[in-house]
Amino acid sequence: MVQITADTKGVFVIAVTPFTETGALDHDSIDRMVDFYMDKGADGLTILGMMGEAPKLTQAESIEVTRLTLARAGEKPVVVGVSAPGLAAIGELTKAVMDLGAAGVMVAPPSSLRTDDQIIGYYRTVVETVGTDVPVVLQDFPLVTNVQISTKTLGAIFEEHASIVMLKHEDWPGLQKISELRQAEARGRRRVSILCGNAGAFLTEEMQRGADGAMTGFAYPEMMADVVRLSNAGEFDRAQDLFDAYLPLVRYEQQPGIGLAVRKYVLARRGAIASAAQRRPGAALNAAAIADVERLIARQTRRLEALA
Amino acid sequence: MVQITADTKGVFVIAVTPFTETGALDHDSIDRMVDFYMDKGADGLTILGMMGEAPKLTQAESIEVTRLTLARAGEKPVVVGVSAPGLAAIGELTKAVMDLGAAGVMVAPPSSLRTDDQIIGYYRTVVETVGTDVPVVLQDFPLVTNVQISTKTLGAIFEEHASIVMLKHEDWPGLQKISELRQAEARGRRRVSILCGNAGAFLTEEMQRGADGAMTGFAYPEMMADVVRLSNAGEFDRAQDLFDAYLPLVRYEQQPGIGLAVRKYVLARRGAIASAAQRRPGAALNAAAIADVERLIARQTRRLEALA
Amino acid sequence: MVQITADTKGVFVIAVTPFTETGALDHDSIDRMVDFYMDKGADGLTILGMMGEAPKLTQAESIEVTRLTLARAGEKPVVVGVSAPGLAAIGELTKAVMDLGAAGVMVAPPSSLRTDDQIIGYYRTVVETVGTDVPVVLQDFPLVTNVQISTKTLGAIFEEHASIVMLKHEDWPGLQKISELRQAEARGRRRVSILCGNAGAFLTEEMQRGADGAMTGFAYPEMMADVVRLSNAGEFDRAQDLFDAYLPLVRYEQQPGIGLAVRKYVLARRGAIASAAQRRPGAALNAAAIADVERLIARQTRRLEALA
Amino acid sequence: MVQITADTKGVFVIAVTPFTETGALDHDSIDRMVDFYMDKGADGLTILGMMGEAPKLTQAESIEVTRLTLARAGEKPVVVGVSAPGLAAIGELTKAVMDLGAAGVMVAPPSSLRTDDQIIGYYRTVVETVGTDVPVVLQDFPLVTNVQISTKTLGAIFEEHASIVMLKHEDWPGLQKISELRQAEARGRRRVSILCGNAGAFLTEEMQRGADGAMTGFAYPEMMADVVRLSNAGEFDRAQDLFDAYLPLVRYEQQPGIGLAVRKYVLARRGAIASAAQRRPGAALNAAAIADVERLIARQTRRLEALA
Repeated sequence: MVQITADTKGVFVIAVTPFTETGALDHDSIDRMVDFYMDKGADGLTILGMMGEAPKLTQAESIEVTRLTLARAGEKPVVVGVSAPGLAAIGELTKAVMDLGAAGVMVAPPSSLRTDDQIIGYYRTVVETVGTDVPVVLQDFPLVTNVQISTKTLGAIFEEHASIVMLKHEDWPGLQKISELRQAEARGRRRVSILCGNAGAFLTEEMQRGADGAMTGFAYPEMMADVVRLSNAGEFDRAQDLFDAYLPLVRYEQQPGIGLAVRKYVLARRGAIASAAQRRPGAALNAAAIADVERLIARQTRRLEALA
Repeated sequence: MVQITADTKGVFVIAVTPFTETGALDHDSIDRMVDFYMDKGADGLTILGMMGEAPKLTQAESIEVTRLTLARAGEKPVVVGVSAPGLAAIGELTKAVMDLGAAGVMVAPPSSLRTDDQIIGYYRTVVETVGTDVPVVLQDFPLVTNVQISTKTLGAIFEEHASIVMLKHEDWPGLQKISELRQAEARGRRRVSILCGNAGAFLTEEMQRGADGAMTGFAYPEMMADVVRLSNAGEFDRAQDLFDAYLPLVRYEQQPGIGLAVRKYVLARRGAIASAAQRRPGAALNAAAIADVERLIARQTRRLEALA
Repeated sequence: MVQITADTKGVFVIAVTPFTETGALDHDSIDRMVDFYMDKGADGLTILGMMGEAPKLTQAESIEVTRLTLARAGEKPVVVGVSAPGLAAIGELTKAVMDLGAAGVMVAPPSSLRTDDQIIGYYRTVVETVGTDVPVVLQDFPLVTNVQISTKTLGAIFEEHASIVMLKHEDWPGLQKISELRQAEARGRRRVSILCGNAGAFLTEEMQRGADGAMTGFAYPEMMADVVRLSNAGEFDRAQDLFDAYLPLVRYEQQPGIGLAVRKYVLARRGAIASAAQRRPGAALNAAAIADVERLIARQTRRLEALA
Repeated sequence: MVQITADTKGVFVIAVTPFTETGALDHDSIDRMVDFYMDKGADGLTILGMMGEAPKLTQAESIEVTRLTLARAGEKPVVVGVSAPGLAAIGELTKAVMDLGAAGVMVAPPSSLRTDDQIIGYYRTVVETVGTDVPVVLQDFPLVTNVQISTKTLGAIFEEHASIVMLKHEDWPGLQKISELRQAEARGRRRVSILCGNAGAFLTEEMQRGADGAMTGFAYPEMMADVVRLSNAGEFDRAQDLFDAYLPLVRYEQQPGIGLAVRKYVLARRGAIASAAQRRPGAALNAAAIADVERLIARQTRRLEALA
């Protein structure tokens, strides 16, 4: 049973949750999707995140999705999102998924937190609840959570809890935050793994600032895998060439609201899942949006061929 | 199995959830508390609301609290709060509690809703999820949810869904909202029951505007029962005399944050529950606050004696 | 030219801005209102606050209101609210009103601030902008500003800026904040004046926790003056008796939205201003609300007679 | 004196406000910047918007910036942002700038608005305040204002006020909103001009949905002018080729917070303004960010050469 650590690097794809057209969990597509992500270069997965329609699942379904994903992922690490309004639910789901073999859990702050001490206090309670032996990913996503965590506050949390081993970085803008965290480590603070979100829209710059990789769900994971690999090899310009070819679609998929519909549409089109269906409430792409996406994919294909 | 309807009147006490000092559910105190509330004049109860520490319970515990409360409440109706970030959880908990004999479920809007149509659409999906045979209470509490529902939007929702039979009214200020809803009914819209929250701080005026009673958790439910009874008898001045005697404590208990600690302290002091303990995170009253409360209770007692 | 200091005590009434029925500034009523407030026991005034319809005034009008108020207030100190989205406007208005003889300026944090350091940085810039010789009141009103300032952050700001001499305290709940600020002073931090807002709804408890008085606009300033005087004399029970007599109306006037209409209605009724008119947008009381207020005043009068 | 109408098309550049290193208004750079924007293909300008540091200007400075810009812009239309917390300030600034010859004013909704009727009521009051003869641009920017305006609500506002002639569209995602507005016009509603913001990041798709152009401040206005021109000529693929070359920098400039620093850095680098300085509070780019921007510009230059 592999677990994430403060040294974890690479690409953890934020997985969608596949449903059938009638809204049932699509078990076969879970297998297919796990294979697809791994085949495209994922080093691990993160399930039941914000883009995994987690709040639409019953608790039993959440555990079932975890069980099926872990079974298929084999030795590859799978992080599970366990954010919830209450600590009891966080603790209960954490115990269940860690028992099944999860690599760690991810927790975003509830939107009611405001002051630095409230944020620090929250993660103290989270660690007490899940236990210090469970690796935790702190998800820093102010655009959605409405909680601003300063670099100093992140530092205080990391210093207090050795079990918070990873930052899912999606502050926006956040490049300077990565630089400051790495500078603090250079001055002696313990290392944490930094994997970046925001649909990968700043992945090239993030890698240059010292990120360890990506944790996001862009429907072409091979882009993220290649950018991380090339960046780690110091080939930043080639990384950026590749990135630029995908950027028009990254941008389109990053739109709030319909972003998940775009992602599922592309994944279904690529054969990773059987259906683009979302559980209610969740809008499907209309014809105009499909035309946009198809046009972007066609252009992307031509540009990648030109790069090859 | 009694259910709430659009004609329901009276006082539904928002129940606390009793815990032991170590944070376990206190089964004995649930019985004691139900007896206490009924003895003080409650016509029904509402459990697992915001002041019931619902998010701190696991789903299994939520169902256990419901089962125990229903068993003790006998023929008295018990509404269950089922608000959750996702519809799957709402649907699952609703089915469980209605099967146990709940009188209806209460649903507050998620804080992401903004436009009128988003709010209307949300309650459409809720009714589809729980089924049209389940009586629903719409909780209108902008101070906490950050969702503003206009009278017009409430009207559109009530017209569309006969199964939304009750409004838990705690807009602030909201007296005019009650007047406008009743005026619309006078012009022909179907009736809904309006029970008022906000710790009862405007109960006398709310009754004069046409409310059917209270749904809130002030630790002296006899005040609410008496104000509702006297108001229904047209004795508004006597109702206000009684109300005024309790108002200093109502005001103190209404404070965000420590309000629940005050309420549990008073309930424990009155013997309704064994301990004032809250589950983490939840602050106990410190000595200064206890001194405030004791002083207010002593004055309240003297004033009630003078009224008698 | 009197200025506020860290030792200022007493009642600073938050003044309304009087308008004629057509929305023009009512110069005569400014004089009448200043006399009324002083006659009822005010130690000073605060103008152009949130309840002074400041955003509805042009800058020229703001300065005119300041000039007229200062002229009438004579030796009594007048604080001027200068909160604005930008520092240039804050600096410009501050210079103008201090030149006219204002006792200090009041600044609330803009709602975009989140982290402790953002709040601390904001007040640093404010002090740089207005100059260290201008006494500043920090308005701490999270219900409206949506900015949470912890006691620790307040302390850091007070330690950094000797010219921030006063806290307008209206965190809710905030009794514990007063206790903690006074405890820090007992341990050696420099003193600040603490005047309390929130419509006076917790004034008796606030005085017992160590507040220096009130800064709020309840339409019966004599209540605040008497509560402060009795509290300072250690007669807390008599202070509470008096407070309780006014509490039903305090509560009604404290309602967001219509609170200002209630206040202006009562002030006009008492002869302090000629008209209850607000500038657009601003609702007048309808008949039902007027009936509520009249009923509360009649009861208040009877109760005060019984106390006398 | 040219004014905007419901038929206005093209690129209105959101202008920065040039300051010297010491924070004074840089009069010379205003001239230089106006010339630069026009030279790069702007059809008009919009000044004193969110990216124009408007809240940092005194009212006198706002009018001075307007006067200087209008003098230099000659026959080209200049829209002025007049959003403010209060209607008096909106009315006063509108009168001043229209007297100087502005082409119209732009008003964003205050963040306190929630329900559809509140939004509709707000724009009714705005039109009453500025007068029906002043062309108004409605700025729809939920990411910053936190106000969600549905397509239906926009329609109600457009139907009520003929003087609201233009939508500054920067809902995100908002492509569908453009489609729906145009469909309503096809069914008979009067036309409004739709110019798009969001740093131009979706300009190609927006033009295909029926937008009339761009109103945003990307530091390479020639991109926007060319994309609009090519799109109007039906050459969507060439428009996208061009757009894609600039997209990596568009994305970098679109970052909240540091976006304006990036924009001013590039404008100063291109000679449009003398200094990238912002008034306090406003961060300059650090070395790492400058390296990012320089790298992106170098790549952009190479790619544009390859396209030529």
